[in-house]
Amino acid sequence: MKTVYITRRETFNAAHKLYREDWSDEKNLEVFGKCSNKNWHGHNFAIYVTVKGVPNPETGFVINLKDLSDIINDEVIEPLDHKNLNLDVLFLKGIMASTENIAVQVWDRIKTPIEKAGGVLSKIKLVETENNFVEYYGGE
Amino acid sequence: MKTVYITRRETFNAAHKLYREDWSDEKNLEVFGKCSNKNWHGHNFAIYVTVKGVPNPETGFVINLKDLSDIINDEVIEPLDHKNLNLDVLFLKGIMASTENIAVQVWDRIKTPIEKAGGVLSKIKLVETENNFVEYYGGE
Amino acid sequence: MKTVYITRRETFNAAHKLYREDWSDEKNLEVFGKCSNKNWHGHNFAIYVTVKGVPNPETGFVINLKDLSDIINDEVIEPLDHKNLNLDVLFLKGIMASTENIAVQVWDRIKTPIEKAGGVLSKIKLVETENNFVEYYGGE
Amino acid sequence: MKTVYITRRETFNAAHKLYREDWSDEKNLEVFGKCSNKNWHGHNFAIYVTVKGVPNPETGFVINLKDLSDIINDEVIEPLDHKNLNLDVLFLKGIMASTENIAVQVWDRIKTPIEKAGGVLSKIKLVETENNFVEYYGGE
Amino acid sequence: MKTVYITRRETFNAAHKLYREDWSDEKNLEVFGKCSNKNWHGHNFAIYVTVKGVPNPETGFVINLKDLSDIINDEVIEPLDHKNLNLDVLFLKGIMASTENIAVQVWDRIKTPIEKAGGVLSKIKLVETENNFVEYYGGE
Amino acid sequence: MKTVYITRRETFNAAHKLYREDWSDEKNLEVFGKCSNKNWHGHNFAIYVTVKGVPNPETGFVINLKDLSDIINDEVIEPLDHKNLNLDVLFLKGIMASTENIAVQVWDRIKTPIEKAGGVLSKIKLVETENNFVEYYGGE
Repeated sequence: MKTVYITRRETFNAAHKLYREDWSDEKNLEVFGKCSNKNWHGHNFAIYVTVKGVPNPETGFVINLKDLSDIINDEVIEPLDHKNLNLDVLFLKGIMASTENIAVQVWDRIKTPIEKAGGVLSKIKLVETENNFVEYYGGE
Repeated sequence: MKTVYITRRETFNAAHKLYREDWSDEKNLEVFGKCSNKNWHGHNFAIYVTVKGVPNPETGFVINLKDLSDIINDEVIEPLDHKNLNLDVLFLKGIMASTENIAVQVWDRIKTPIEKAGGVLSKIKLVETENNFVEYYGGE
Repeated sequence: MKTVYITRRETFNAAHKLYREDWSDEKNLEVFGKCSNKNWHGHNFAIYVTVKGVPNPETGFVINLKDLSDIINDEVIEPLDHKNLNLDVLFLKGIMASTENIAVQVWDRIKTPIEKAGGVLSKIKLVETENNFVEYYGGE
Repeated sequence: MKTVYITRRETFNAAHKLYREDWSDEKNLEVFGKCSNKNWHGHNFAIYVTVKGVPNPETGFVINLKDLSDIINDEVIEPLDHKNLNLDVLFLKGIMASTENIAVQVWDRIKTPIEKAGGVLSKIKLVETENNFVEYYGGE
Repeated sequence: MKTVYITRRETFNAAHKLYREDWSDEKNLEVFGKCSNKNWHGHNFAIYVTVKGVPNPETGFVINLKDLSDIINDEVIEPLDHKNLNLDVLFLKGIMASTENIAVQVWDRIKTPIEKAGGVLSKIKLVETENNFVEYYGGE
Repeated sequence: MKTVYITRRETFNAAHKLYREDWSDEKNLEVFGKCSNKNWHGHNFAIYVTVKGVPNPETGFVINLKDLSDIINDEVIEPLDHKNLNLDVLFLKGIMASTENIAVQVWDRIKTPIEKAGGVLSKIKLVETENNFVEYYGGE
């Protein structure tokens, strides 16, 4: 029984800001720096979703990448692409739109659909810039 | 007299939208697609500025890259990074914030400072995503 | 009148070989090296299509990237993606499937559709590997 | 005793298809999509081989990268580069040429040679496109 | 309690050689190959520092990337950038300047400052070329 | 007669410094910044050599990439890779080792060999870092 990990990348472009209404502008600037700009800024995000499993003897697939891509597009790209992460996204409402928090929320959205497609979600990598990214393994 | 072209890359992250107030939402959506989202979206932009000239016999430099980097940072990165290109940028006011138009405006801002530093601006390349970029040579 | 150049990247994965039936295997190997393997090899190709024009004053667009992307997908990606460039592609029949020749043929296919969409085709860049690519400007 | 992980990348270009002779064309298309094209397609593959170990006190090396590169070239690049993965490769005969299965087979080929060179194989990453890759840690 | 891993990339350009004074030139060449050139060679290094932790409920941050970037710049980039790794760097004196050894030394320098900033150092990835990199997890 | 441009990338890793012996250390630091470090620094250089021509009707080649690669390796990579550009390279002796100057010297070395192989040298692009590169078209 040979476990293999397969990863699919998808991309989305979105606006966000890091800003707490219950803090003064000064404190927001001190903690969040330029990311606290009230009028938003944005990024080209890339998300890498890793699924683990034993390759199916007939197909050689851990999961059909068509299915994995469909799940990511339905659950992540469609709701986030060309959106404002603070304003437009139901599952991010009331949550500080840090890369860390987005990754955690995405995990919760795609875990079950991936299981229904026969895979086990292993990791999410969310890349904000060429210099910054987060990885999430379900919290362990 | 050997002309060489030297290029410096700098990056900025910004929000924008493509939306005309004098058009209906339907027409905005039809023409600008997802880029017309009222609540903005954003990108990691990369700007490549190319300067041409004959290398200085003493330094081997067409232009000192420290000077070129300073000009790009003062004139482009400082005003655009972590900003909303439609709302926050004086030199883009009243201009549709397409990649094409931003490149043209940036050219006009940095041409003279580069000449004062002894170089000749040859090209601006403005990259919006891994799939889209524009190049501008001063309009010729 | 400010001419700007805008580029769209699309990708396709294809098999091909460089092999002349009218040559011996030895000569094929001598000229084409490993690329002459009778059973094919393949690449992840990336095509960059550059269109030039003056940005439309209302939209800021040289050409609507949606239109440009549709043209490239209809004329290039659909016929070439996951295909055998020697066997499966009508417009490459009887042509040595070198990167140079593919770029020339692609130019002839997309020039008129781009003109109908209001742009002027300026350049095709066809990338075969991270180490090899060709550029074509219409033959000039 | 400080364990460090060192990785070497090598690349190869190959053709393959995902197609079962014991299935109808319709079922092949349904499961494998465009990858089932009978006339093959291809990719620029990149393989990353990770070896773990304690750096040798005299050389600072976990493994000499020259040795690691030689092993990968002898065992992987030579048999796979510019080849048809379904037809030309002895150690892939009778195996569905999915990225998952190739990674597993490569592991079995290079594990012992790496041990003879004094290292311990830790991971293989096989990249098929910028959007798809697999990782294999020996099956655990 | 959801552990997330966040990574910051920084870069530096440095010269080094792999050469033991207590070995003959022949043995140095045999073991270290071209890297033993007495007059040095160099690289564009990229360092990725990964910190793990539970996102702060107020900020959504595992660690403030400004703090992480400052630590890497103070402890790694400042002492290594545009330096000779064999001659100019106090904390590498007497150590073979292999990528493996540099990664281990960097770990020891930044572990405590990262803890003081509220994070836990999880991994260092040090990239020497597009084909070679090492990863270090503290020795486990 | 369709002119196509074909480009081959090769890489080398080298040490250099920007320093004039006839200047004080202060002036060297003022003009060349960190690049004036007496003990050298280094880079992963990438060189892109572009050759133009009409594809051969029999082969579809502007130039055989095997020949182009051999020329670049013999004339550029062999003398520069894992070398000190100020000390070890005959054709750079007495020349400030700026990227601009290296590109000009490389042009003069490979122009004739490329012509003998049936091509016309069109451009050299020499990349020093992800942020800095020069292009040279023979001086025009």
